[in-house]
Amino acid sequence: MPIDPQRFLEDLHKLRSFGASGVGKGVVRQAYSDADIAARKWLAGRMKEAGLEPHFDPLGNLFGLAAEKSLLLGSHSDSQPEGGWLDGALGVIAGLEIARAAKEDGVPSISCVSFQDEEGRFGVLTGSDVWSGKLSLTEADGFADNQGNTLADMRGRMAELAGEFLPHDRFTGFLEMHIEQGPYLEETGLGLGVVTDIVGIRDMRITFEGRQNHAGTTPMHLRRDAFQALSAFNTALNSRFANVVTPATVWTIGHLALHPNASSVVPGRAVFSMQWRDADADRLARMEEIIKEAAQKIAAAHGVRAELGPVMGIEPAAMDARFQAGLADAAEALAPGKWQKMPSGALHDAASLATVMPAGMLFVPSIGGISHAFDEDTEEAELVLGLQVLNRAARALAG
Amino acid sequence: MPIDPQRFLEDLHKLRSFGASGVGKGVVRQAYSDADIAARKWLAGRMKEAGLEPHFDPLGNLFGLAAEKSLLLGSHSDSQPEGGWLDGALGVIAGLEIARAAKEDGVPSISCVSFQDEEGRFGVLTGSDVWSGKLSLTEADGFADNQGNTLADMRGRMAELAGEFLPHDRFTGFLEMHIEQGPYLEETGLGLGVVTDIVGIRDMRITFEGRQNHAGTTPMHLRRDAFQALSAFNTALNSRFANVVTPATVWTIGHLALHPNASSVVPGRAVFSMQWRDADADRLARMEEIIKEAAQKIAAAHGVRAELGPVMGIEPAAMDARFQAGLADAAEALAPGKWQKMPSGALHDAASLATVMPAGMLFVPSIGGISHAFDEDTEEAELVLGLQVLNRAARALAG
Repeated sequence: MPIDPQRFLEDLHKLRSFGASGVGKGVVRQAYSDADIAARKWLAGRMKEAGLEPHFDPLGNLFGLAAEKSLLLGSHSDSQPEGGWLDGALGVIAGLEIARAAKEDGVPSISCVSFQDEEGRFGVLTGSDVWSGKLSLTEADGFADNQGNTLADMRGRMAELAGEFLPHDRFTGFLEMHIEQGPYLEETGLGLGVVTDIVGIRDMRITFEGRQNHAGTTPMHLRRDAFQALSAFNTALNSRFANVVTPATVWTIGHLALHPNASSVVPGRAVFSMQWRDADADRLARMEEIIKEAAQKIAAAHGVRAELGPVMGIEPAAMDARFQAGLADAAEALAPGKWQKMPSGALHDAASLATVMPAGMLFVPSIGGISHAFDEDTEEAELVLGLQVLNRAARALAG
Repeated sequence: MPIDPQRFLEDLHKLRSFGASGVGKGVVRQAYSDADIAARKWLAGRMKEAGLEPHFDPLGNLFGLAAEKSLLLGSHSDSQPEGGWLDGALGVIAGLEIARAAKEDGVPSISCVSFQDEEGRFGVLTGSDVWSGKLSLTEADGFADNQGNTLADMRGRMAELAGEFLPHDRFTGFLEMHIEQGPYLEETGLGLGVVTDIVGIRDMRITFEGRQNHAGTTPMHLRRDAFQALSAFNTALNSRFANVVTPATVWTIGHLALHPNASSVVPGRAVFSMQWRDADADRLARMEEIIKEAAQKIAAAHGVRAELGPVMGIEPAAMDARFQAGLADAAEALAPGKWQKMPSGALHDAASLATVMPAGMLFVPSIGGISHAFDEDTEEAELVLGLQVLNRAARALAG
């Protein structure tokens, strides 16, 4: 039996029912929550019905194994604290459907997977990072979520399901379908994106420590205002980056805490996040230099002290050339002229997998570019087109 | 008996014992707290012992009344959530000592007062604002603190003490001694400040509403980043104010909330406080125009929407010329060349009182300019010098 779009959509809607929020098609299904564990148990059941062997590893990553060494398809079924129905889930159910149909058809066998904690309740891509060996289980076990729960305690909730970690050479490569989570495919009218690279991320916490003072009695020239330092730093950075970045480079100050954060007090401290992303590791390093120089220079000019936290890095990951070609051929066959190559600005499990096996990714559009929100959505016709292209590529690459 | 510096210091230390914090000379004695009410009951007892009639009004303002129409001296005995031992307390105990000594000496009589909630648990200068008639009791009763308690409920805790509001014409004028709460007197080596004006304050809440987006997948040119708009607004304001302000003008962005405030999300909303202070109402108005123009212009340039909240205003209050002269004469007599006239950048009860009677203020230095903090302090010799100057001026002005 070839792939069945109806069965695929039904399973996708069924998966949403685990942790379905009251808003739109929203989902609340964080890693290791009751909803997440229930969803994984249901998925394991669907795998078994399809003749695939369900296998949980110690992290809670769930594989649906074909009998032989095979191509692996999938994504993650955990969600953001307030997430949408497609982020991760789409790739998991597409993988299930394609592996199921391959089994039914007797074509070269395909396995599927749902990784755990891609959304970073604990780390970043926690499940695929540990399995790929980038992060040790011991280190990951010490990670805590915002409520102070450790990963060790939370994965203990799935202990009775857990088997061993699978060897990587059980698989010939990894394919992941995902929503774009950005506006590009929708705005250009292109239906599909073949991912070339997953961009690298650098993240650091910067603190400007000035002097907290009364906002009425402290003359402007005697202030050491941490917010003013931050504003000047931001302005300097935007200017200095201009000659370094490409149109695909992004940088963000998204988190900020002022202290004491009162309208009548000159802010004595500003702690903020500085994040930047690019597909080129050299450019990421050059930006890091500029950030550090600018922070020190602005701090000195404003009489504040700059504390630069450690730079957390995720390396850019190039997708495998043969897998890119396989996806491109399938897209051109089924949607001629309606696809294009593009980098991924968001992080995905395929970035972890690319360090241990050939990996490829296919994007479908996100309505309004919205993701990590209850109103994330994609037209079902586009989901089905993505499934068909992924299936065609998978059969070619598995063969 | 003339004023007794030892008795004054002992009462000042005793007042600190109500709500004394574990840190330095810190005090935790917010309006209507157990510590505040206990302190007021103790103060009422000290007034009675001095032959002054203790009188609570419905707000909890505590007067120590001389038998006849008289000059009024005082300040407030409530503290900031984390306050020092002198802010308000100094003026209250100085008023008590001077009224007590006047009673003992049989010189023209003097009354004293401790206003309630100067520190704004509910409003701003709540006790003196209501008594002066600037704020109605009905309106004030609806005010809530950060925990959602209403003023009506909290003043109910003192209901069994409450008498009527006193008529303003019971008093010939008001004198207040206070710590400077700024660095000026210490840095110039001047021991005393005679206040000319209490600056006016304008406060508004501004919201920049942009679009919340994924920080990896949203290209820079498609972003509507509320933090970027705020930073540009701040830069524009600093530049545009340059030709309008004086060295005494101050402005502050002290409170800021980004939404959703996450390092991987382009901030969709920034809500922040914009506060500015000056002794000249026309300049305050000119600055308001600039703020509003800049906010709209920057918002348009950044594709965000600016919402400008209502402008909360406290008018500048000039101190009475005769009272200024009385304080200046006393300062020159007891500390020749060691005082000067200066505006007050902080708000004080004298600003409310100035709308209904002649008012004057005397400042003593703050070590390191520190206030609204546990480590607020002043040398005791300087507290006593302030007491002596205030007493000399009060006797001259009451005569």
